[in-house]
Amino acid sequence: MNVLTSPEAMTAWASERHGDRIGLVPTMGFLHDGHVSLMKRLRLEVDHLVVSIYVNPLQFGEGEDLAVYPRDLPGDLKRCKEAGVDAVFAPEELYPQGFQTSVSVHDLSQGLCGDRRPGHFEGVCTVVARLFGLTRCTTAIFGEKDFQQLTVLRRMTRDLALPVRIVPGELIRDIDGVALSSRNKYLSDPQRLQARTLHHALYAMRDAFQDGVVGVAELVAVGAQILNVDSLDYLTIADADSLAPLATVDRPARALVAGNVGKTRLIDNIAIGPDFPWT
Amino acid sequence: MNVLTSPEAMTAWASERHGDRIGLVPTMGFLHDGHVSLMKRLRLEVDHLVVSIYVNPLQFGEGEDLAVYPRDLPGDLKRCKEAGVDAVFAPEELYPQGFQTSVSVHDLSQGLCGDRRPGHFEGVCTVVARLFGLTRCTTAIFGEKDFQQLTVLRRMTRDLALPVRIVPGELIRDIDGVALSSRNKYLSDPQRLQARTLHHALYAMRDAFQDGVVGVAELVAVGAQILNVDSLDYLTIADADSLAPLATVDRPARALVAGNVGKTRLIDNIAIGPDFPWT
Repeated sequence: MNVLTSPEAMTAWASERHGDRIGLVPTMGFLHDGHVSLMKRLRLEVDHLVVSIYVNPLQFGEGEDLAVYPRDLPGDLKRCKEAGVDAVFAPEELYPQGFQTSVSVHDLSQGLCGDRRPGHFEGVCTVVARLFGLTRCTTAIFGEKDFQQLTVLRRMTRDLALPVRIVPGELIRDIDGVALSSRNKYLSDPQRLQARTLHHALYAMRDAFQDGVVGVAELVAVGAQILNVDSLDYLTIADADSLAPLATVDRPARALVAGNVGKTRLIDNIAIGPDFPWT
Repeated sequence: MNVLTSPEAMTAWASERHGDRIGLVPTMGFLHDGHVSLMKRLRLEVDHLVVSIYVNPLQFGEGEDLAVYPRDLPGDLKRCKEAGVDAVFAPEELYPQGFQTSVSVHDLSQGLCGDRRPGHFEGVCTVVARLFGLTRCTTAIFGEKDFQQLTVLRRMTRDLALPVRIVPGELIRDIDGVALSSRNKYLSDPQRLQARTLHHALYAMRDAFQDGVVGVAELVAVGAQILNVDSLDYLTIADADSLAPLATVDRPARALVAGNVGKTRLIDNIAIGPDFPWT
């Protein structure tokens, strides 16, 4: 497994493999089974598998946890090697001197997490566009856990005609059902119990839908009764493609929740109704 | 010569030539000898030469000449064929349904033409990023006439690590020295005489520099005495790389001018001192 620590080394590596299928799993490190599942999924579809590890300052807002974001490069490299990764791109500096470019996806970056984290998706789009360029990847995978992020990046890729196929990766849950996240390590035992109410609420909403309830207000009320967080950002059901709010579930939809347990921000989501036909 | 009228057709054409060197000359049509010189220059460096013709609404501001921008597709196709172009990409619609992405280069888009045309360079960056994606070009050429645009696009390409080499194309002048521009057709005979004062001013500034004057205020005064426009946007000397204003010409610099003759906005520029080492 190659470990590449500069943009130049990454691009040189990719150029040597020009014409082959290169897959990219972009991460901020502190890798867990959710990341590994993305690697294993993409491994099957490409000739060369690249994992990037970079805690991207552009996507953190003021007062967010950039400085204390958990890191463990030796552990990450071990997990990558076990997953059959060909190259880890772990640069100290990702951006060139004088860097001043940004990429924005306007409407889809509004609402949901975009309201709570202004500039976040612009930071995500910008880093991902640059990672696509540096790695020369032909396919990239993004987990459905960050559902709005996945939607925004699909839109960016389509709008700029980037030569990259976007694959959605399944959301992976721990044995107690909590969606895997690098931030779960912050949770105390009682907070972990609170964290479980996120997916309990979402599953109850899906069950109610399957029992015939289609009004979003009613479905959200079902989830809200169960949810136990210290502050709620949103609990909602949106169009699975446009993320527009729905009044009635009459098309592929997604139930989404975000909130804080203590100081830790958690998100989760689930398909409601037929799954959205990616492609 | 192929004429491709949809993004899908363009990308299909490019995909069939994957691995070859594809060159792109992005234009808004109404092609003149300046464009042809870009084609001929790039023709030597690539296997397949593509010219795009698209009047991009995103880069026109309110009150600008989008609706009346001159067009002549039959004449353009003839010129392309004569210049050995392999494919003309002339889509009616360039952007997909639901398009909502933009690319910005922040500092370099401020000042000079950016002050007069807010949003202009964002529109340019966005369309060029999409054209790079659709045409899968490996090299693209931009004329030095739009010097700020060239600088902005070099920065975008570097910052997003786009797999495209940017080649600067020489500014081409008419027999009377006026920089070639599709907008020159708007000029009456007396206005044409005024237009000549743009390059007269710039050449006088360069001559004064070569005679030993290095103060930018003095050099600009030399040009200002000659310049005869109806309204002046700027006459200045800037760092050739960063476009930062200079007080003294102590590095590769560019003298730049923009102003209106009647309703027609004209720009021109010239190297002052050593040429900037591109690459």
